Amino acid sequence: MKYVFGVDIGGTTVKMGLLDETGSCLDKWEIPTRKENGGENILPDVAKAIEEKLNEKGINKADVIGVGTGVPGPVDSQGVVHKAVNLGWGTFNVDEKMTELTGLKAKTGNDANVAALGELWKGGGQGYSDIVMVTLGTGVGGGIIIGGKIVDGSAGAGGEIGHIHIKDDEKIACGCGNYGCLEQYTSATGISRTAKEMFEKWSGSTVLTKDDLSAKAVFDGVKAGDELCINVAKEFGETLGKGLALIACVVNPEAFVIGGGVSKAGEVLLKYIEPSFDKYVFHGAKNAKMVLATLGNDAGMYGAARLVM
Amino acid sequence: MKYVFGVDIGGTTVKMGLLDETGSCLDKWEIPTRKENGGENILPDVAKAIEEKLNEKGINKADVIGVGTGVPGPVDSQGVVHKAVNLGWGTFNVDEKMTELTGLKAKTGNDANVAALGELWKGGGQGYSDIVMVTLGTGVGGGIIIGGKIVDGSAGAGGEIGHIHIKDDEKIACGCGNYGCLEQYTSATGISRTAKEMFEKWSGSTVLTKDDLSAKAVFDGVKAGDELCINVAKEFGETLGKGLALIACVVNPEAFVIGGGVSKAGEVLLKYIEPSFDKYVFHGAKNAKMVLATLGNDAGMYGAARLVM
Repeated sequence: MKYVFGVDIGGTTVKMGLLDETGSCLDKWEIPTRKENGGENILPDVAKAIEEKLNEKGINKADVIGVGTGVPGPVDSQGVVHKAVNLGWGTFNVDEKMTELTGLKAKTGNDANVAALGELWKGGGQGYSDIVMVTLGTGVGGGIIIGGKIVDGSAGAGGEIGHIHIKDDEKIACGCGNYGCLEQYTSATGISRTAKEMFEKWSGSTVLTKDDLSAKAVFDGVKAGDELCINVAKEFGETLGKGLALIACVVNPEAFVIGGGVSKAGEVLLKYIEPSFDKYVFHGAKNAKMVLATLGNDAGMYGAARLVM
Repeated sequence: MKYVFGVDIGGTTVKMGLLDETGSCLDKWEIPTRKENGGENILPDVAKAIEEKLNEKGINKADVIGVGTGVPGPVDSQGVVHKAVNLGWGTFNVDEKMTELTGLKAKTGNDANVAALGELWKGGGQGYSDIVMVTLGTGVGGGIIIGGKIVDGSAGAGGEIGHIHIKDDEKIACGCGNYGCLEQYTSATGISRTAKEMFEKWSGSTVLTKDDLSAKAVFDGVKAGDELCINVAKEFGETLGKGLALIACVVNPEAFVIGGGVSKAGEVLLKYIEPSFDKYVFHGAKNAKMVLATLGNDAGMYGAARLVM
């Protein structure tokens, strides 16, 4: 049997997995992300955890295919990360550093792209080779896979779909500095903002309260048939469907895989995205399916392992 | 020396080229596109022209790498065209048919995608591996190349960037049936429409006349410093720059290669696109250069040849 490590480095914890070559997860665990001193301990900590796991399981390094890693920042095709601000990292070659520390083959990618690869391999995107993963969390992330391969982009910004310009009349700046980005309306934060705006003007009854206008509260309300919540969901679906239609005209994927915290709402979410997608998409690209991600927080770990195989 | 044929099938003529393996064009010529009877003569005519050229030049088939073909319709990665209405074609495998007719290896792609590959190989995109080609003609076509390979899309609609939804308040339908597509504003036809709308409201002096509100007249006027023409160009650049910024958030190319009839205006065109692109693009994808296509109508012939190599 051959083994592979999948490592997903986040701002708080590093998620680690030991998989076999078929992608079965044999073990998974977490270690803290030590960000002090420019994050200089992060990779040595990962290397140490790998050594310990090999000893614990009695696995020979010759039987390990390699270590795949996802990091929260742009990574080019050579494995060079170009700043990962959440880790305190500047620019350096993660592949080389990881191989130096572990003696294993290493391959590194952007965390959102790697999560997309994970969903393609073992999650909601199984059976496809061209997908766009859409992660609806605090922000909106994305990962594009064409022919089974990640589209990194020439500066590591492939799949940065949260920053597609979607509205012209926005007065509030996005975190990126631009105005009217897709994530300002379709992230958990964006849904909550829409809910707040609609709640303040709403005179009818609703299950929403000013103390909880979260995306979760909105979709719970949708399931309960709440009219205000349904209006918020329609606005969300109109905007996201339009955004995905634009993307479909560029890469014409087989499927959009919808993940992130907001996707916990389940199938109901797709019901609000699909009509808008169908309305705005070019007829030749209408074939794209909408599916939910299934791996949750493990997607990055699976995709990172796949990356090095 | 090895040889390769590049064939670009258009609605009126088929452009053919005989190239050597380095991409030098040894000969190029045209034959008429016979569209009658569902276009059944088109490929036999091409095969006949190839045989004649081989005889004329005394080239042995063993020295021919193959025949690459661009067709005006969606083509999947197996060489199956899914309707090419301008040729009268339904759905069939062009690669197989061409090999049957010529005894040569064959590879077929969509004409816009193949033109992009041509510009990457021998035109404005030389030196890059990730480009988006934007063809501003009667409509707006596109071709996406990532890592030197065409992004066909899962249904052959990769790079259909002319049908990106860019304006919400459009009352006139695009040829595709949707409202507010990029090509409604940034094709030669779209520029002319904007010129007409602005001309009718214009009270100042202008070089434009109601008999010639073409895209060429507009950009000639821009070069002469005509204020109305400059306004039209600004509107064009604002819309196209915004569209290209969206695309950059998806695939983050190294360069946009601007071609088609409108691009004959030259470098002045880029001056109107770039400020808008810079305004709307995500900072991580700002690296994309804007360059002009250089191969004109030969791009498809070059790219088709490259496709089979």
